[in-house]
Amino acid sequence: MMRATAIIPFKPKNPKSRLSCVLDEAEREAFAEAMLLDVVTAVKEADCQPVILGTELFDSELVQVTIKDVGLSDALNEYLTCAVTSVLIIMADLPLADETSIKRVLETKKDIAIVPGRGGGTNVILLKDPKRFHVDYYGGSFLKHIRIAEECGLSYEVIDSFRLHTDIDEKDDLVELLIHGTGKSRSFLEERGFRLTTENGRVGIERIGKS
Amino acid sequence: MMRATAIIPFKPKNPKSRLSCVLDEAEREAFAEAMLLDVVTAVKEADCQPVILGTELFDSELVQVTIKDVGLSDALNEYLTCAVTSVLIIMADLPLADETSIKRVLETKKDIAIVPGRGGGTNVILLKDPKRFHVDYYGGSFLKHIRIAEECGLSYEVIDSFRLHTDIDEKDDLVELLIHGTGKSRSFLEERGFRLTTENGRVGIERIGKS
Repeated sequence: MMRATAIIPFKPKNPKSRLSCVLDEAEREAFAEAMLLDVVTAVKEADCQPVILGTELFDSELVQVTIKDVGLSDALNEYLTCAVTSVLIIMADLPLADETSIKRVLETKKDIAIVPGRGGGTNVILLKDPKRFHVDYYGGSFLKHIRIAEECGLSYEVIDSFRLHTDIDEKDDLVELLIHGTGKSRSFLEERGFRLTTENGRVGIERIGKS
Repeated sequence: MMRATAIIPFKPKNPKSRLSCVLDEAEREAFAEAMLLDVVTAVKEADCQPVILGTELFDSELVQVTIKDVGLSDALNEYLTCAVTSVLIIMADLPLADETSIKRVLETKKDIAIVPGRGGGTNVILLKDPKRFHVDYYGGSFLKHIRIAEECGLSYEVIDSFRLHTDIDEKDDLVELLIHGTGKSRSFLEERGFRLTTENGRVGIERIGKS
Protein backbone atom coordinates (compact mmCIF):
# COMPACT_ATOMS: atom_id res chain seq x y z
CA MET A 1 0.00 0.00 0.00
CA MET A 2 1.35 3.43 -0.96
CA ARG A 3 1.26 5.66 2.05
CA ALA A 4 1.63 9.00 0.25
CA THR A 5 2.76 10.67 -2.94
CA ALA A 6 6.19 12.17 -2.30
CA ILE A 7 6.72 15.40 -4.22
CA ILE A 8 10.42 16.25 -4.53
CA PRO A 9 11.21 19.73 -5.88
CA PHE A 10 14.46 19.61 -7.89
CA LYS A 11 16.63 22.06 -9.83
CA PRO A 12 18.80 20.10 -12.31
CA LYS A 13 20.68 23.05 -13.88
CA ASN A 14 23.40 24.93 -11.96
CA PRO A 15 22.18 23.80 -8.54
CA LYS A 16 23.78 24.31 -5.12
CA SER A 17 25.72 27.46 -6.00
CA ARG A 18 26.99 27.80 -2.42
CA LEU A 19 29.09 24.68 -3.09
CA SER A 20 30.91 26.40 -5.98
CA CYS A 21 34.01 26.76 -3.77
CA VAL A 22 34.55 22.98 -3.81
CA LEU A 23 32.58 21.64 -6.83
CA ASP A 24 32.38 22.99 -10.39
CA GLU A 25 29.04 23.29 -12.19
CA ALA A 26 29.07 19.83 -13.81
CA GLU A 27 30.05 18.27 -10.48
CA ARG A 28 27.32 20.15 -8.65
CA GLU A 29 24.74 18.86 -11.14
CA ALA A 30 25.96 15.28 -10.68
CA PHE A 31 26.07 15.72 -6.90
CA ALA A 32 22.55 17.21 -6.78
CA GLU A 33 21.25 14.25 -8.77
CA ALA A 34 23.05 11.80 -6.43
CA MET A 35 21.36 13.46 -3.46
CA LEU A 36 18.00 13.32 -5.27
CA LEU A 37 18.48 9.59 -5.87
CA ASP A 38 19.23 9.06 -2.18
CA VAL A 39 15.99 10.84 -1.30
CA VAL A 40 14.06 8.81 -3.92
CA THR A 41 15.47 5.57 -2.47
CA ALA A 42 14.47 6.58 1.05
CA VAL A 43 10.90 7.57 0.15
CA LYS A 44 10.41 4.35 -1.81
CA GLU A 45 11.64 2.32 1.18
CA ALA A 46 9.05 4.18 3.24
CA ASP A 47 6.37 3.06 0.73
CA CYS A 48 5.83 6.42 -0.93
CA GLN A 49 5.48 7.11 -4.65
CA PRO A 50 8.13 9.67 -5.67
CA VAL A 51 7.30 12.42 -8.18
CA ILE A 52 10.02 14.89 -9.16
CA LEU A 53 8.88 18.49 -9.54
CA GLY A 54 11.71 19.84 -11.66
CA THR A 55 12.55 23.18 -13.23
CA GLU A 56 13.79 21.31 -16.33
CA LEU A 57 13.60 17.78 -17.63
CA PHE A 58 16.79 15.83 -17.04
CA ASP A 59 18.05 12.44 -18.18
CA SER A 60 16.50 9.98 -15.75
CA GLU A 61 13.88 7.28 -15.52
CA LEU A 62 12.27 8.98 -12.54
CA VAL A 63 8.70 10.26 -12.84
CA GLN A 64 8.97 13.95 -13.63
CA VAL A 65 6.68 16.94 -13.71
CA THR A 66 8.21 20.12 -15.09
CA ILE A 67 7.47 23.61 -13.82
CA LYS A 68 8.93 27.06 -14.32
CA ASP A 69 11.90 27.96 -12.12
CA VAL A 70 9.79 30.67 -10.51
CA GLY A 71 6.83 29.91 -8.38
CA LEU A 72 7.61 26.70 -6.48
CA SER A 73 4.95 27.52 -3.91
CA ASP A 74 2.38 28.34 -6.62
CA ALA A 75 3.09 25.12 -8.50
CA LEU A 76 2.82 23.08 -5.31
CA ASN A 77 -0.39 24.81 -4.23
CA GLU A 78 -1.97 24.11 -7.62
CA TYR A 79 -1.05 20.46 -7.18
CA LEU A 80 -2.40 20.35 -3.60
CA THR A 81 -5.84 21.60 -4.62
CA CYS A 82 -6.40 18.49 -6.76
CA ALA A 83 -4.47 15.90 -4.73
CA VAL A 84 -6.46 12.80 -3.80
CA THR A 85 -3.92 11.07 -1.51
CA SER A 86 -1.72 12.22 1.35
CA VAL A 87 1.15 14.33 0.07
CA LEU A 88 4.68 14.35 1.42
CA ILE A 89 6.75 17.29 0.17
CA ILE A 90 10.41 16.56 0.71
CA MET A 91 13.43 18.53 -0.47
CA ALA A 92 15.99 16.95 -2.81
CA ASP A 93 19.04 18.01 -0.75
CA LEU A 94 18.43 15.69 2.21
CA PRO A 95 20.76 12.76 1.53
CA LEU A 96 20.67 11.66 5.18
CA ALA A 97 16.95 10.89 4.81
CA ASP A 98 16.26 7.22 5.52
CA GLU A 99 13.30 4.87 5.79
CA THR A 100 13.08 5.22 9.58
CA SER A 101 13.06 9.01 9.66
CA ILE A 102 10.50 9.27 6.85
CA LYS A 103 8.26 6.70 8.50
CA ARG A 104 8.31 8.79 11.69
CA VAL A 105 6.86 11.61 9.58
CA LEU A 106 4.26 9.36 7.91
CA GLU A 107 3.14 7.84 11.20
CA THR A 108 2.03 11.11 12.78
CA LYS A 109 -1.41 11.08 14.40
CA LYS A 110 -1.86 14.78 13.57
CA ASP A 111 -3.20 16.33 10.35
CA ILE A 112 0.27 17.56 9.43
CA ALA A 113 3.83 16.55 10.27
CA ILE A 114 6.64 18.99 9.61
CA VAL A 115 10.42 18.84 9.83
CA PRO A 116 12.27 22.15 10.08
CA GLY A 117 15.47 22.68 8.14
CA ARG A 118 18.52 24.33 9.60
CA GLY A 119 17.99 28.09 9.33
CA GLY A 120 14.21 28.24 9.50
CA GLY A 121 13.15 26.45 6.32
CA THR A 122 10.81 23.49 5.87
CA ASN A 123 12.57 20.33 4.77
CA VAL A 124 9.67 17.90 4.91
CA ILE A 125 5.93 18.32 5.34
CA LEU A 126 3.24 15.66 5.33
CA LEU A 127 -0.30 16.75 4.49
CA LYS A 128 -2.99 14.14 5.14
CA ASP A 129 -5.66 16.37 3.60
CA PRO A 130 -3.71 18.49 1.08
CA LYS A 131 -6.75 20.49 -0.06
CA ARG A 132 -6.96 22.16 3.36
CA PHE A 133 -3.41 23.56 3.37
CA HIS A 134 -1.23 25.82 1.24
CA VAL A 135 2.53 26.15 1.29
CA ASP A 136 4.72 29.26 1.34
CA TYR A 137 8.39 28.37 0.91
CA TYR A 138 9.93 31.81 0.67
CA GLY A 139 12.07 32.75 3.73
CA GLY A 140 11.51 31.30 7.18
CA SER A 141 8.87 28.89 5.93
CA PHE A 142 8.85 26.70 9.04
CA LEU A 143 7.20 29.33 11.25
CA LYS A 144 4.93 30.34 8.34
CA HIS A 145 3.73 26.76 7.89
CA ILE A 146 3.04 26.43 11.62
CA ARG A 147 0.96 29.62 11.42
CA ILE A 148 -0.90 28.44 8.29
CA ALA A 149 -1.73 25.15 10.03
CA GLU A 150 -3.12 27.05 13.01
CA GLU A 151 -5.14 29.40 10.77
CA CYS A 152 -6.56 26.40 8.89
CA GLY A 153 -7.49 24.63 12.13
CA LEU A 154 -5.15 21.73 11.40
CA SER A 155 -3.26 19.89 14.13
CA TYR A 156 0.46 19.44 13.59
CA GLU A 157 3.48 17.60 14.93
CA VAL A 158 7.09 18.74 14.61
CA ILE A 159 9.25 15.70 13.91
CA ASP A 160 12.58 15.84 15.74
CA SER A 161 15.08 14.38 13.25
CA PHE A 162 18.59 15.61 12.47
CA ARG A 163 18.69 13.36 9.38
CA LEU A 164 15.80 15.32 7.86
CA HIS A 165 16.91 18.64 9.42
CA THR A 166 20.31 18.57 7.68
CA ASP A 167 20.05 20.09 4.21
CA ILE A 168 23.26 20.19 2.23
CA ASP A 169 23.96 23.74 1.08
CA GLU A 170 27.50 24.66 2.09
CA LYS A 171 30.94 23.13 2.41
CA ASP A 172 30.54 22.54 6.18
CA ASP A 173 27.39 20.52 5.51
CA LEU A 174 29.47 17.99 3.56
CA VAL A 175 31.03 16.98 6.89
CA GLU A 176 27.62 15.70 8.00
CA LEU A 177 27.25 13.69 4.79
CA LEU A 178 30.68 12.04 5.17
CA ILE A 179 29.92 11.16 8.80
CA HIS A 180 26.29 10.04 8.56
CA GLY A 181 25.60 9.33 4.87
CA THR A 182 25.31 5.82 3.43
CA GLY A 183 24.15 6.35 -0.16
CA LYS A 184 25.17 7.58 -3.59
CA SER A 185 25.94 11.16 -2.62
CA ARG A 186 28.41 10.09 0.05
CA SER A 187 30.08 7.77 -2.50
CA PHE A 188 30.15 10.66 -4.97
CA LEU A 189 32.15 12.78 -2.53
CA GLU A 190 34.51 9.95 -1.59
CA GLU A 191 35.21 9.06 -5.22
CA ARG A 192 36.15 12.67 -5.89
CA GLY A 193 38.68 12.74 -3.07
CA PHE A 194 36.76 14.37 -0.23
CA ARG A 195 37.96 13.34 3.21
CA LEU A 196 37.28 14.36 6.81
CA THR A 197 40.06 16.24 8.60
CA THR A 198 40.60 17.11 12.25
CA GLU A 199 42.44 20.30 13.15
CA ASN A 200 42.56 21.82 16.64
CA GLY A 201 39.85 19.40 17.68
CA ARG A 202 37.43 20.47 14.93
CA VAL A 203 36.24 18.29 12.12
CA GLY A 204 36.49 19.74 8.61
CA ILE A 205 36.73 18.55 5.04
CA GLU A 206 39.47 18.51 2.42
CA ARG A 207 39.70 17.40 -1.19
CA ILE A 208 42.67 15.28 -2.23
CA GLY A 209 44.04 15.12 -5.79
CA LYS A 210 42.01 17.98 -7.31
CA SER A 211 44.24 20.15 -9.49
CA MET B 1 12.54 6.20 40.00
CA MET B 2 15.67 7.91 38.70
CA ARG B 3 16.53 6.56 35.28
CA ALA B 4 20.13 7.76 35.13
CA THR B 5 22.63 10.19 36.56
CA ALA B 6 23.01 13.01 34.05
CA ILE B 7 26.54 14.40 33.99
CA ILE B 8 26.63 17.88 32.44
CA PRO B 9 30.12 19.26 31.70
CA PHE B 10 30.13 23.06 32.14
CA LYS B 11 32.62 25.90 31.82
CA PRO B 12 31.35 28.91 33.83
CA LYS B 13 34.22 31.34 33.09
CA ASN B 14 34.60 32.98 29.65
CA PRO B 15 32.50 30.35 27.84
CA LYS B 16 31.31 30.31 24.22
CA SER B 17 34.07 32.49 22.81
CA ARG B 18 32.72 32.08 19.24
CA LEU B 19 29.74 34.19 20.35
CA SER B 20 32.02 37.13 21.25
CA CYS B 21 30.84 38.95 18.11
CA VAL B 22 27.37 39.37 19.59
CA LEU B 23 27.74 38.91 23.39
CA ASP B 24 30.37 40.31 25.76
CA GLU B 25 32.03 38.11 28.38
CA ALA B 26 29.55 38.78 31.19
CA GLU B 27 26.65 38.16 28.79
CA ARG B 28 28.20 34.94 27.54
CA GLU B 29 28.55 33.71 31.12
CA ALA B 30 24.90 34.52 31.86
CA PHE B 31 23.81 32.96 28.55
CA ALA B 32 25.84 29.78 29.15
CA GLU B 33 24.20 29.43 32.58
CA ALA B 34 20.74 29.98 31.06
CA MET B 35 21.44 27.17 28.56
CA LEU B 36 22.71 24.95 31.39
CA LEU B 37 19.50 25.58 33.34
CA ASP B 38 17.42 24.60 30.28
CA VAL B 39 19.37 21.34 30.03
CA VAL B 40 18.97 20.73 33.80
CA THR B 41 15.20 21.29 33.50
CA ALA B 42 14.96 18.87 30.58
CA VAL B 43 16.95 16.07 32.25
CA LYS B 44 14.92 16.44 35.46
CA GLU B 45 11.68 16.20 33.45
CA ALA B 46 13.09 12.99 31.96
CA ASP B 47 13.62 11.67 35.53
CA CYS B 48 17.40 11.98 35.59
CA GLN B 49 19.52 13.33 38.45
CA PRO B 50 21.66 16.20 37.13
CA VAL B 51 25.26 16.62 38.28
CA ILE B 52 27.29 19.54 36.94
CA LEU B 53 30.90 18.75 36.13
CA GLY B 54 32.36 22.25 36.17
CA THR B 55 35.79 23.77 35.68
CA GLU B 56 35.04 26.20 38.54
CA LEU B 57 32.39 26.50 41.20
CA PHE B 58 29.74 29.08 40.35
CA ASP B 59 26.89 30.64 42.27
CA SER B 60 24.05 28.15 41.98
CA GLU B 61 22.10 25.63 43.98
CA LEU B 62 22.80 22.90 41.44
CA VAL B 63 24.82 19.86 42.49
CA GLN B 64 28.38 20.55 41.40
CA VAL B 65 31.58 18.57 41.06
CA THR B 66 34.63 20.62 40.21
CA ILE B 67 37.44 19.47 37.93
CA LYS B 68 40.43 21.06 36.28
CA ASP B 69 39.80 22.79 32.95
CA VAL B 70 42.05 20.24 31.26
CA GLY B 71 41.14 16.61 30.97
CA LEU B 72 37.38 16.43 30.52
CA SER B 73 37.67 12.92 29.11
CA ASP B 74 40.00 11.83 31.94
CA ALA B 75 37.68 13.23 34.60
CA LEU B 76 34.68 11.54 33.01
CA ASN B 77 36.48 8.22 32.62
CA GLU B 78 37.50 8.29 36.28
CA TYR B 79 33.84 8.83 37.17
CA LEU B 80 32.66 6.05 34.85
CA THR B 81 34.90 3.42 36.47
CA CYS B 82 33.06 3.82 39.78
CA ALA B 83 29.54 4.60 38.52
CA VAL B 84 26.80 2.35 39.92
CA THR B 85 23.84 3.58 37.81
CA SER B 86 23.30 4.31 34.14
CA VAL B 87 25.09 7.49 33.13
CA LEU B 88 23.85 10.08 30.66
CA ILE B 89 26.54 12.53 29.58
CA ILE B 90 24.89 15.58 28.05
CA MET B 91 26.50 18.84 26.98
CA ALA B 92 25.44 22.15 28.57
CA ASP B 93 24.96 23.99 25.26
CA LEU B 94 21.86 22.10 24.11
CA PRO B 95 19.00 24.44 25.05
CA LEU B 96 16.61 22.72 22.60
CA ALA B 97 16.84 19.52 24.68
CA ASP B 98 13.43 18.53 25.99
CA GLU B 99 11.83 15.71 27.95
CA THR B 100 10.74 13.84 24.81
CA SER B 101 14.11 13.86 23.09
CA ILE B 102 15.98 12.81 26.24
CA LYS B 103 13.49 10.02 26.90
CA ARG B 104 14.12 8.69 23.38
CA VAL B 105 17.78 8.38 24.41
CA LEU B 106 16.95 6.74 27.75
CA GLU B 107 14.55 4.25 26.20
CA THR B 108 17.10 2.62 23.90
CA LYS B 109 17.18 -1.17 23.95
CA LYS B 110 20.91 -1.14 23.16
CA ASP B 111 23.83 -0.89 25.61
CA ILE B 112 24.56 2.65 24.46
CA ALA B 113 22.58 5.46 22.85
CA ILE B 114 24.43 8.32 21.22
CA VAL B 115 23.42 11.62 19.64
CA PRO B 116 25.92 13.24 17.28
CA GLY B 117 26.47 16.99 17.38
CA ARG B 118 26.75 19.10 14.28
CA GLY B 119 30.34 18.83 13.07
CA GLY B 120 31.19 15.36 14.33
CA GLY B 121 31.05 15.76 18.10
CA THR B 122 29.06 13.80 20.67
CA ASN B 123 26.28 15.81 22.27
CA VAL B 124 24.63 13.09 24.35
CA ILE B 125 25.63 9.56 25.26
CA LEU B 126 23.81 7.08 27.50
CA LEU B 127 25.85 4.29 29.05
CA LYS B 128 23.83 1.55 30.72
CA ASP B 129 26.99 -0.13 32.04
CA PRO B 130 29.45 2.78 32.37
CA LYS B 131 32.34 0.61 33.61
CA ARG B 132 32.56 -1.07 30.19
CA PHE B 133 33.07 2.15 28.19
CA HIS B 134 35.46 5.07 28.08
CA VAL B 135 34.96 8.44 26.43
CA ASP B 136 37.27 10.44 24.17
CA TYR B 137 35.87 13.90 23.50
CA TYR B 138 38.73 15.47 21.57
CA GLY B 139 37.95 16.08 17.85
CA GLY B 140 35.41 14.02 15.90
CA SER B 141 34.27 12.16 19.01
CA PHE B 142 31.11 10.71 17.45
CA LEU B 143 32.96 8.31 15.15
CA LYS B 144 35.48 7.57 17.95
CA HIS B 145 32.69 6.63 20.33
CA ILE B 146 31.11 4.35 17.74
CA ARG B 147 34.50 2.65 17.31
CA ILE B 148 35.03 2.33 21.08
CA ALA B 149 31.57 0.75 21.45
CA GLU B 150 32.44 -1.79 18.73
CA GLU B 151 35.81 -2.56 20.30
CA CYS B 152 34.16 -3.06 23.69
CA GLY B 153 31.51 -5.38 22.21
CA LEU B 154 28.69 -3.00 23.15
CA SER B 155 25.58 -2.55 21.00
CA TYR B 156 24.60 1.03 20.20
CA GLU B 157 21.80 3.13 18.74
CA VAL B 158 22.18 6.52 17.09
CA ILE B 159 19.27 8.72 18.16
CA ASP B 160 17.99 10.89 15.33
CA SER B 161 17.12 14.22 17.02
CA PHE B 162 17.80 17.73 15.76
CA ARG B 163 16.95 19.13 19.22
CA LEU B 164 19.89 17.25 20.71
CA HIS B 165 22.04 17.63 17.56
CA THR B 166 21.95 21.44 17.69
CA ASP B 167 24.70 22.77 19.93
CA ILE B 168 24.88 26.53 20.26
CA ASP B 169 28.37 27.73 19.37
CA GLU B 170 28.06 30.48 16.78
CA LYS B 171 25.84 33.41 15.86
CA ASP B 172 23.95 31.39 13.22
CA ASP B 173 23.04 28.79 15.86
CA LEU B 174 21.09 31.47 17.75
CA VAL B 175 18.56 31.38 14.88
CA GLU B 176 17.70 27.81 15.86
CA LEU B 177 17.22 28.84 19.50
CA LEU B 178 14.87 31.72 18.59
CA ILE B 179 12.82 29.42 16.32
CA HIS B 180 12.67 26.26 18.41
CA GLY B 181 13.61 27.24 21.99
CA THR B 182 11.08 27.54 24.80
CA GLY B 183 13.20 28.08 27.92
CA LYS B 184 15.40 30.53 29.79
CA SER B 185 18.08 30.88 27.13
CA ARG B 186 15.58 31.91 24.48
CA SER B 187 14.14 34.47 26.92
CA PHE B 188 17.66 35.67 27.63
CA LEU B 189 18.20 36.45 23.95
CA GLU B 190 14.81 38.10 23.52
CA GLU B 191 15.27 40.30 26.59
CA ARG B 192 18.58 41.50 25.18
CA GLY B 193 17.02 42.55 21.89
CA PHE B 194 17.79 39.61 19.60
CA ARG B 195 15.27 39.15 16.80
CA LEU B 196 14.93 36.98 13.68
CA THR B 197 15.35 38.73 10.34
CA THR B 198 14.63 37.64 6.77
CA GLU B 199 16.78 38.96 3.95
CA ASN B 200 16.77 37.55 0.40
CA GLY B 201 14.75 34.62 1.66
CA ARG B 202 17.27 33.67 4.34
CA VAL B 203 16.63 33.80 8.06
CA GLY B 204 19.25 35.58 10.17
CA ILE B 205 19.50 37.34 13.49
CA GLU B 206 19.91 40.95 14.60
CA ARG B 207 20.25 42.72 17.90
CA ILE B 208 18.15 45.81 18.54
CA GLY B 209 19.09 48.58 20.97
CA LYS B 210 22.65 47.48 21.75
CA SER B 211 24.99 50.48 21.81
